[in-house]
Amino acid sequence: MTSPVIITTYDWVPDFAKGYVRDLRPRWALEEIGRPYEINTVPVREKSPEHYARQPFGQVPLLQDGALSLFESGAILIHLAESTELMPPGDDRARTVQWICAGLNSVEPFSMQWASAKFFDKNEAAAAKCEKPLRDRLAKLQNGLAGHDWLVGGKFSVADILIADILRIPAKNGMLDDLHGLADYVERATGRPAFKRAYASQMAHWQEADTREAGTAK
Amino acid sequence: MTSPVIITTYDWVPDFAKGYVRDLRPRWALEEIGRPYEINTVPVREKSPEHYARQPFGQVPLLQDGALSLFESGAILIHLAESTELMPPGDDRARTVQWICAGLNSVEPFSMQWASAKFFDKNEAAAAKCEKPLRDRLAKLQNGLAGHDWLVGGKFSVADILIADILRIPAKNGMLDDLHGLADYVERATGRPAFKRAYASQMAHWQEADTREAGTAK
Repeated sequence: MTSPVIITTYDWVPDFAKGYVRDLRPRWALEEIGRPYEINTVPVREKSPEHYARQPFGQVPLLQDGALSLFESGAILIHLAESTELMPPGDDRARTVQWICAGLNSVEPFSMQWASAKFFDKNEAAAAKCEKPLRDRLAKLQNGLAGHDWLVGGKFSVADILIADILRIPAKNGMLDDLHGLADYVERATGRPAFKRAYASQMAHWQEADTREAGTAK
Repeated sequence: MTSPVIITTYDWVPDFAKGYVRDLRPRWALEEIGRPYEINTVPVREKSPEHYARQPFGQVPLLQDGALSLFESGAILIHLAESTELMPPGDDRARTVQWICAGLNSVEPFSMQWASAKFFDKNEAAAAKCEKPLRDRLAKLQNGLAGHDWLVGGKFSVADILIADILRIPAKNGMLDDLHGLADYVERATGRPAFKRAYASQMAHWQEADTREAGTAK
């Protein structure tokens, strides 16, 4: 379980996406479990047939682990967590998967719809319309956390990586200002050394990309 | 693994939702593996504190399996499939979870956004705006299926239960008319005896609910 894996991300992204591209999730998990990884890139602007062959939706991240090529950050997280301290045993395993599915299907779609209107379409009226359902989901998620430090069994798990990362965008945009339980949760999760290493590593990647772009543009 | 489980669904839903409430997913999985189940209900109109305590988002289905109470249809499906023929071993296990995550995060949010605009808000302009991104995802999903009968390893798995059920709403609304591969896939999946039993069982539940409502209204 200590062989290096390869994470594929984009070769470049606009400034607003830096630090938020989802390769941060497997980076974070790998930093938590101390497993080495390498970074590979695919073009973000013109997606290649090879990329679509590995990822039908043309998204990132992708994971290569030996013969296994895997997409979807949620599935990559579950795979990397298996047989590590990030995945608790017994019924808590099912509860961990439950919170990952809740993040993917009951929280993130509302956040993405809002962020897509605000940052991609720059449509403030549409973003405002998406804000109420998002805030409602966030308040309910805080109830689900029920004052605990972590989502499952009192211990940090791979579910916290996914949910805390999903919450970083609402947190950054002031939507947790009245939800102190969730705001503290995000602080607690992103205060972990493994998150900081993963974040710094992704940001260094975008820095290199910008330097390369500047070189090409000369 | 043959002890009965309890699935919680709503006590009533409007006609357009009948046959599409997500308790269909665990029903289908349980019919496939031949595991007995009982149905419990929670009020759809006034959600109780007890319901929110078990399901922070106030949604259904819920699963009770011995001491384990679980929400999120994706997580319930993964849990029920463990150690059965619905969950292939080895790397195909990770690929099965990958397609479940893809369904939850890369396909269903687009379908829900469209359906929510069309059926809940009855806003045709908003629905029309959601149609292009949904059709794009559906075309890409068809590429991902790549002409195979089933998503993973040539065998029907729990991933097919989730993805085929997600596709039933677009299929019913003509969005697979030009996507013959996906349309055939949905036909193949919903042609299975286990789906037919699950569907009939959910529809019988709504029939009983309507009869009860009519009795109460007297």
